[in-house]
Amino acid sequence: MTRPAPTMVNPDPTPEEERELEAMYTTMAEENMIPLWTQLDELMPQVPASAAVAHQWQWSTLLPLAERAGDLVPVGRGGERRAIALANPGLGGAPFATPTLWAAIQYLGGHEVAPEHRHSQNAFRFVVEGEGVWTVVNGDPVRMSRGDFLLTPGWNFHGHHNETDQPMAWIDGLDIPFVHYADTSFFEFGIDRVTDESTPDISRSERLWGHPGLRPLSGLSNTVSSPIGAYRWEHTDRALTEQLRLEDEGFPATVGQGHAAIRYVNPTTGGDVMPTIRAEFHRLRAGTTTPVTRRVGSEVMQVFEGSGRILVDDRVFDVVTGDLVVMPSWSAVSIETETGLDLFAFNDRPIIETLNFARTHVEGEQQ
Amino acid sequence: MTRPAPTMVNPDPTPEEERELEAMYTTMAEENMIPLWTQLDELMPQVPASAAVAHQWQWSTLLPLAERAGDLVPVGRGGERRAIALANPGLGGAPFATPTLWAAIQYLGGHEVAPEHRHSQNAFRFVVEGEGVWTVVNGDPVRMSRGDFLLTPGWNFHGHHNETDQPMAWIDGLDIPFVHYADTSFFEFGIDRVTDESTPDISRSERLWGHPGLRPLSGLSNTVSSPIGAYRWEHTDRALTEQLRLEDEGFPATVGQGHAAIRYVNPTTGGDVMPTIRAEFHRLRAGTTTPVTRRVGSEVMQVFEGSGRILVDDRVFDVVTGDLVVMPSWSAVSIETETGLDLFAFNDRPIIETLNFARTHVEGEQQ
Amino acid sequence: MTRPAPTMVNPDPTPEEERELEAMYTTMAEENMIPLWTQLDELMPQVPASAAVAHQWQWSTLLPLAERAGDLVPVGRGGERRAIALANPGLGGAPFATPTLWAAIQYLGGHEVAPEHRHSQNAFRFVVEGEGVWTVVNGDPVRMSRGDFLLTPGWNFHGHHNETDQPMAWIDGLDIPFVHYADTSFFEFGIDRVTDESTPDISRSERLWGHPGLRPLSGLSNTVSSPIGAYRWEHTDRALTEQLRLEDEGFPATVGQGHAAIRYVNPTTGGDVMPTIRAEFHRLRAGTTTPVTRRVGSEVMQVFEGSGRILVDDRVFDVVTGDLVVMPSWSAVSIETETGLDLFAFNDRPIIETLNFARTHVEGEQQ
Amino acid sequence: MTRPAPTMVNPDPTPEEERELEAMYTTMAEENMIPLWTQLDELMPQVPASAAVAHQWQWSTLLPLAERAGDLVPVGRGGERRAIALANPGLGGAPFATPTLWAAIQYLGGHEVAPEHRHSQNAFRFVVEGEGVWTVVNGDPVRMSRGDFLLTPGWNFHGHHNETDQPMAWIDGLDIPFVHYADTSFFEFGIDRVTDESTPDISRSERLWGHPGLRPLSGLSNTVSSPIGAYRWEHTDRALTEQLRLEDEGFPATVGQGHAAIRYVNPTTGGDVMPTIRAEFHRLRAGTTTPVTRRVGSEVMQVFEGSGRILVDDRVFDVVTGDLVVMPSWSAVSIETETGLDLFAFNDRPIIETLNFARTHVEGEQQ
Repeated sequence: MTRPAPTMVNPDPTPEEERELEAMYTTMAEENMIPLWTQLDELMPQVPASAAVAHQWQWSTLLPLAERAGDLVPVGRGGERRAIALANPGLGGAPFATPTLWAAIQYLGGHEVAPEHRHSQNAFRFVVEGEGVWTVVNGDPVRMSRGDFLLTPGWNFHGHHNETDQPMAWIDGLDIPFVHYADTSFFEFGIDRVTDESTPDISRSERLWGHPGLRPLSGLSNTVSSPIGAYRWEHTDRALTEQLRLEDEGFPATVGQGHAAIRYVNPTTGGDVMPTIRAEFHRLRAGTTTPVTRRVGSEVMQVFEGSGRILVDDRVFDVVTGDLVVMPSWSAVSIETETGLDLFAFNDRPIIETLNFARTHVEGEQQ
Repeated sequence: MTRPAPTMVNPDPTPEEERELEAMYTTMAEENMIPLWTQLDELMPQVPASAAVAHQWQWSTLLPLAERAGDLVPVGRGGERRAIALANPGLGGAPFATPTLWAAIQYLGGHEVAPEHRHSQNAFRFVVEGEGVWTVVNGDPVRMSRGDFLLTPGWNFHGHHNETDQPMAWIDGLDIPFVHYADTSFFEFGIDRVTDESTPDISRSERLWGHPGLRPLSGLSNTVSSPIGAYRWEHTDRALTEQLRLEDEGFPATVGQGHAAIRYVNPTTGGDVMPTIRAEFHRLRAGTTTPVTRRVGSEVMQVFEGSGRILVDDRVFDVVTGDLVVMPSWSAVSIETETGLDLFAFNDRPIIETLNFARTHVEGEQQ
Repeated sequence: MTRPAPTMVNPDPTPEEERELEAMYTTMAEENMIPLWTQLDELMPQVPASAAVAHQWQWSTLLPLAERAGDLVPVGRGGERRAIALANPGLGGAPFATPTLWAAIQYLGGHEVAPEHRHSQNAFRFVVEGEGVWTVVNGDPVRMSRGDFLLTPGWNFHGHHNETDQPMAWIDGLDIPFVHYADTSFFEFGIDRVTDESTPDISRSERLWGHPGLRPLSGLSNTVSSPIGAYRWEHTDRALTEQLRLEDEGFPATVGQGHAAIRYVNPTTGGDVMPTIRAEFHRLRAGTTTPVTRRVGSEVMQVFEGSGRILVDDRVFDVVTGDLVVMPSWSAVSIETETGLDLFAFNDRPIIETLNFARTHVEGEQQ
Repeated sequence: MTRPAPTMVNPDPTPEEERELEAMYTTMAEENMIPLWTQLDELMPQVPASAAVAHQWQWSTLLPLAERAGDLVPVGRGGERRAIALANPGLGGAPFATPTLWAAIQYLGGHEVAPEHRHSQNAFRFVVEGEGVWTVVNGDPVRMSRGDFLLTPGWNFHGHHNETDQPMAWIDGLDIPFVHYADTSFFEFGIDRVTDESTPDISRSERLWGHPGLRPLSGLSNTVSSPIGAYRWEHTDRALTEQLRLEDEGFPATVGQGHAAIRYVNPTTGGDVMPTIRAEFHRLRAGTTTPVTRRVGSEVMQVFEGSGRILVDDRVFDVVTGDLVVMPSWSAVSIETETGLDLFAFNDRPIIETLNFARTHVEGEQQ
């Protein structure tokens, strides 16, 4: 639909009219007032027109830079974390992957400790490679290993420590941009090391909550965020494997032909793991192409294994393990793979959905 | 609190008054009217005063009778199931374990088939011993083994078939009495055998839904009842074991000292498995006694393993594996065991809670 | 669908078989066990088959009997209320209008006081004629006048007092049968008069909550039952009048041609006024017939004004002001009026719906 | 709490170290990566530190400027509305009252028409003076008069027309900044006039929904936003008057001594009128001072009647009828009046609360 020619802004004013208008606009500006009619197109576009752009970061670039930071910058109190954020090229130099989401690579050297703190921002970690670090969340040590998805919901004290001689890197996802925007940040420092330096194979949260369909009677109050500290790769992998097998056997199980997917959820409600962030894992069989889809809300994806192409509007990103791609709201997204592709993804759709702004458009589908 | 002496019923009427009252009551009866003041105590007691009584059924009695039924009564269309209900002695000969709950032992001989049907009544099975039967729920074959808790929510077609030469018995739990009372019964016959006679180790519902904290993207709509067909003993056992270990390590995990417990839940909501029935599993360490507790709503328990005593008001039931005990609403219940006790339990508390009638009284606790 | 011939009960047993079966059934009975296969039809009918029947009580019968009770039976502590229940002829002499619902006519003579008490049962009053009584609910005096619908949710202290020389009668609706069935009754006596004998035109609950779309900031916590003590006739009448006018103007507003209707709701949630009882008011224009409809759950209607016919299955009830009709679950109901009809109705659908048993069948509609 | 001295940024590097760090930061910037440790304080403050500032706009300035715009700028298609936004001086020249909220004065001359359109942004109008305009929302004409609060939830077509010879001005409130930030804007043009030019005293939405505690049976599906088009001043005024009277009579009704307040709500849920905006009306008796309170989330207030002082952190705003004040997240707010004060207020707390960021601190209260 074409935008009608504006009738409110006179295209051909007399000099007198121009002077009067100028004077009025100047007075308005002095009084901290701005007319809508000069800004409508920018303020209220016909479909979302994000300043953020689609962009790819390659793991082969990210990891060496994180390693260099490991050499040059000690981790410790004040800076708190050796985390390097993905800065969307469209967002004017802010360290934000999308308007709402933060994505960073964090790097912890052998025997280093990231001190404890807590904040209202919701956080998770996803491990694309490596092991040897435990994150301690409210006193509960949580092993971090390849393929694991680990939660630190808002206002939980947490720190990390590396028990090995080897460094480890992983991805942090947070709602820092949203919290910054909405002015909801609270932050508190904790102790300078971690409260429990033990290194159990499995956290207490998993021992209590990691049993399918079973809820401890000591945990009957629902919680806003998931009480599960770690979603282990073995479960994710098994769930996806079963979906594809069921598809092979002729039963409905996948979201599309050749496309298995799970959402990480809060077992006390069945809903998203945290109030602002949704996290999912997708597996595409070799030879699969997903339909071109637009969704309100922004998203970040990281390749966990395999290779493929992520198409966002008119951009084509060739991706391999570790690569990250961001996609702005309402961009047209399709994913294709010749060899098979495992993808971790997170987005701000819980915000979009609870505030009633969700829309989806799948190309070729009846709306 | 003592009930005050009624002032509305004249204790010493004149013969004339008595005649007039008699005449009025007679007219009322003819007009299908009944005065409240003559019935208040019975209708609106100060605390729940159930007609149902606490009662025990011994497995050593139940099983032989089910076997005898296996010899004398063929399973098949019309009668549908070789199930023998526990009839609460206080409920006037109705086949109801409590006013709301049905509990029965069902028995299926070698190579027998219980034909398919569906009904609005919600059902589950719990297996205290044996194996070899598959229950087929909406076409999904579900293996039944010792310790498993298996669901057939309302309006799912289901039948059972025994693939072995050996008979198998288990416990059925349903809301038949409630549905009968509230006049909400719908029933439909299905095919005379089962729609899928295969015998997979694990059902499709488990393959899709049996992964802790993971939800298939093909199953994002919440369902009133759990989509999980089978809650396996290995998960229940592990969850309880972990709770007791955490207690040993000094962390909060159990509902009381020495008392581990889980609730079976619907993973799409975190709530009860079915809208009318709650199911739980409790494990008491050797030497544990639970506090005397009254709750609104009725309950049925079956010993899965071990031995102990279930005290209900002034009754004492010595129980061993397979024994069932029912307890009416607001009865004072305590459980004790010298050797350790594993207990399966189900109750009508979802009804009580959603309708806002829940109350609990724990002896010795501040209310 | 015809019920198949049962195959489990041998129609032609040998004497030996008969003896064995007899012996087994006897042993079962002794052990408080009852086979399902002999009872399936009665227990699990193909559609709800209520013991309750459709029935009419005429106001011209009810009111004189209540007056006679006013002469013969003093109101007071112990019997508590001069209330006479409608006893459904199908329910074996119990004072229950339907399996779940209580309906009674209550009568309070000039200057009489019904003393305070509270109970877990949820109650309301509906006034078909008269005035002069205040019901005092948790200390808040609520005037009772023609057409008003007045609430006493569970566990609120309440009493009534008549400030005039004239008696007054009204209809009580409660969930006494359900509470009796489910064993959830708690009852406490209060003071022997009422805590506030003032007679304001409007209750405090209405002054706080009776403003459309406005919620007091002092009342932001949702409540299970409505905080509104009285739903006044003038509002009900105006709402129905506007619906019919909007229909006349060509806008969607009514539930069917000529059929205006409102539901009384809890303003903190928009849901039913109490957790077990739904209450509605229906207005049919002269010449209207409603489609034949079956619903799961039972209902009671009282004519407020006008005359008509209520058809329930094969029964036809000619009704005028004050008459009450009960209709069992799944009965086929239609209402017709030549002169116009105002109807108050209450039912147990909140129970049916929250427990997921709701079904509706409208004759002639695609299901 | 003092922020600890950062340990990650070497305060005294060697020239070599400095060179290496510089090089690393340069490479990172080239790769669209930004380290967290240099930005933590700004990104994650210990309490919300909004860029927005507290600010006052005087009605005596706003109205004349709107009138001047009325002379110089025709209303019409393209610019759509003669609305002039309040631009928070802290937000860098954006036309946003707070980071999430838009507030503007809109002005419509005699016999002018603002053409129809719809957008995903949620909107309301509040009328501090004047009359004569009808806003037409989805075809339903809604009279706008002094003290009325009028809704246009997202995606409803709407236009305005002035039926008189006199101009009219009012306040628009929208979530334009949030929608702009989160990239959720959809916009569609409608017809160039309004679909229904009639001028009824009361809208159809009020005729259906404006009856306290009554819900039309034709409107049983809950809606995300309120179906009520207009919340009339007479109801708001009466509700506040009754709260203060109840306070005088010694009953709990106000939120604080001398402070009556209502929230405008969606009658289908009892919740906020729209998913992103909360609206309230407050009345302070002469001589009242409210406790100093901080809340997460931003707010805009407009004086409806009376005069007083709004204290925000270290700012003091003397306010009279029509004046607007904005207050950023977590600012310390108190209101005082010697003569009595009626205040309309709207804020973004539905966003804050549904995403679990709500916190409140009342000075002098135990937290």
